[in-house]
Amino acid sequence: MKEKQFLMIPGPTNVPLKILHTLGSPAMGHRTPEFARVLKEATEGLQKVYQTKNDLYVLTSSGTGAMEAAVANFVNAGDKVIVMENGNFGERWVKLNTRYGADVEVISGPWGERANPQALRERIAQDVQQEIKAVYVTHNETSTGVVHDVQALREALGDHPAIFIVDAISGMAVSPLPVDEWQLDVVVSGSQKAFMIPPGLSFISVSPKAWAVNEKVTTPSFYFNLQAARKSYEKYNAPYTAATSLVVALCETLKMLEEEGLENIYQRHSYYKKLVRTAVKALGLELLTSEEAGSSAVTAIKKPGNLDVQELTKIMREKHKVIIAGGQGKFKKEIFRIGHLGYVDVNDIIVTIAALERTLKELGWEFQLGQGVAAVQKLLLEGEK
Amino acid sequence: MKEKQFLMIPGPTNVPLKILHTLGSPAMGHRTPEFARVLKEATEGLQKVYQTKNDLYVLTSSGTGAMEAAVANFVNAGDKVIVMENGNFGERWVKLNTRYGADVEVISGPWGERANPQALRERIAQDVQQEIKAVYVTHNETSTGVVHDVQALREALGDHPAIFIVDAISGMAVSPLPVDEWQLDVVVSGSQKAFMIPPGLSFISVSPKAWAVNEKVTTPSFYFNLQAARKSYEKYNAPYTAATSLVVALCETLKMLEEEGLENIYQRHSYYKKLVRTAVKALGLELLTSEEAGSSAVTAIKKPGNLDVQELTKIMREKHKVIIAGGQGKFKKEIFRIGHLGYVDVNDIIVTIAALERTLKELGWEFQLGQGVAAVQKLLLEGEK
Repeated sequence: MKEKQFLMIPGPTNVPLKILHTLGSPAMGHRTPEFARVLKEATEGLQKVYQTKNDLYVLTSSGTGAMEAAVANFVNAGDKVIVMENGNFGERWVKLNTRYGADVEVISGPWGERANPQALRERIAQDVQQEIKAVYVTHNETSTGVVHDVQALREALGDHPAIFIVDAISGMAVSPLPVDEWQLDVVVSGSQKAFMIPPGLSFISVSPKAWAVNEKVTTPSFYFNLQAARKSYEKYNAPYTAATSLVVALCETLKMLEEEGLENIYQRHSYYKKLVRTAVKALGLELLTSEEAGSSAVTAIKKPGNLDVQELTKIMREKHKVIIAGGQGKFKKEIFRIGHLGYVDVNDIIVTIAALERTLKELGWEFQLGQGVAAVQKLLLEGEK
Repeated sequence: MKEKQFLMIPGPTNVPLKILHTLGSPAMGHRTPEFARVLKEATEGLQKVYQTKNDLYVLTSSGTGAMEAAVANFVNAGDKVIVMENGNFGERWVKLNTRYGADVEVISGPWGERANPQALRERIAQDVQQEIKAVYVTHNETSTGVVHDVQALREALGDHPAIFIVDAISGMAVSPLPVDEWQLDVVVSGSQKAFMIPPGLSFISVSPKAWAVNEKVTTPSFYFNLQAARKSYEKYNAPYTAATSLVVALCETLKMLEEEGLENIYQRHSYYKKLVRTAVKALGLELLTSEEAGSSAVTAIKKPGNLDVQELTKIMREKHKVIIAGGQGKFKKEIFRIGHLGYVDVNDIIVTIAALERTLKELGWEFQLGQGVAAVQKLLLEGEK
């Protein structure tokens, strides 16, 4: 029974059982009217989740590809850009912009905390020459389990002409991010997160303001060139061969998301956050983040005493068949993380907490067996949402 | 029965029925030992098909992504590169190199003919300063149904220090291309061609000579950066989230390819070429290419008289449920193309030729009904391979 596993990492997430078979749909010509209909349906479904009328494209890549598109299409070498960095994926915006020769100014904050809108507001106020071309932020910082206050960050930019670019890879369809209402110019996400299908597709929305900036950009890009995407999308074609089978499956999970409704989806994930945080505290473990900063997609837990988190995740996986994540970057050995986004329910969380309890006992952590699961059960019985 | 279709385009190709279900395998953590084993198995299987000991990486993108990697990782702006161009995909090498600021010298030839090794040999002989940094060629030019003489082209380069880069997207595992024996430095291919799985993965091999060139390259690249791939592959990890479900399926089709054996695979595709070419001629149609230049992956047929090829492919698809391809680029309205690579057998070819006969009759083309299928049958009865 080796293959019966619980995947509780912050993506790739579980694929709904009734969707798995659609991945094995018959091969499809990528330049047929049939596929154009599928791509149109997927794109329109994504626009609903994004709550946007902006152009939106499906790229055949993982999320990092869409992040590269969000740099290469909007930044010339030498351009001043601001990156709000509080984690590994904030650092990815820094690395990408640096690679493309941008003049990167990083507003860093402690890992595990939210980015500071006030720091951005002050920096923008100083920019009287309007030299800043773009501001890069992270919606849900997967590496630390923090949901940033994107609305406040966007408000800090005000009516400055810089474009506002959001990595929403693990946060889209988990926590609110109304793209048009909040005036988010470029927003990227990925298939293997709350969209509940395997990795291989990424998504990017582009506002009219971002298109105007794009027109002046000469940075080389080809596969991720968004002008090529725009041109092909006139006929709902992808510029290069799309991962057809993943797009077919995406249409199905988008229907599930629409049926559940965005508000219910946000509430469900927020409830999972509460269950996991409550259980973890009941085991005497320490959360990395405050309640407010804590992500609805993934919960980060500090290393229990002197225990080895890599050993902990290994025991979870090998003995108890529950796959959780260790830390990333400079927090590699400092935290472990439980993902609870996408196709997850309360029973998955009970299994995970129970496996965590047995693992902690094996490692000699002192607590009363059953306290974590009991804390979850108590909340469930209260029926509170 | 709308969905019962015959996919006879030069990729995406049909997926073997027994492989379809593996695409719906349960979701898998992309940083687990389990996935590392899968990625290792896929990589080693691909190296066997490539006949190479060179490093080889699986990228999550369609083939054009790997083509971009083959430019961005090996060319600095201003570098002199040669592109052998006889079709739409030769032009893609030109566009990609131009986008990255290379000093591109194009050795063009007529579409439908093979690239001329002698022209390359002469150009190389003139390059006494050894200014040429790279030579880009196409193995199988999908747009015209031509298999180029890659071995002769490579021999024309001789021991010049330029690296030799091959687009083998539609030709790998169709026609011979022994990477090490022919000293091919960088070779790209893609999942949705003879590898018989859906689009979403591309492959790239890198020789030690190419790595030495790469060390001096400063062109920006991130998602397709091969140094990042090399580093991650030390532990058989992909640098960014891999399309796990496609890699699982790829392992299965690689086993099928190994079981059949490369020589048998080449012979089978060559036999399909013969069947299709013979049938097409029996219908009084004109082939675009000579016998020698003709591809084993796809056969290009000239527009019959004044018939509209877009109408022809539309009738084939809508009335007869056989999907073939029109022309591309400047040959968009001049030819149509029948793909016969990957998971194709003689019955698929009979269906396709029969549908072509009915379509041609509807369009008023004059020939004796049944002649095309009869020509195929005759060859089959002769048992000739």
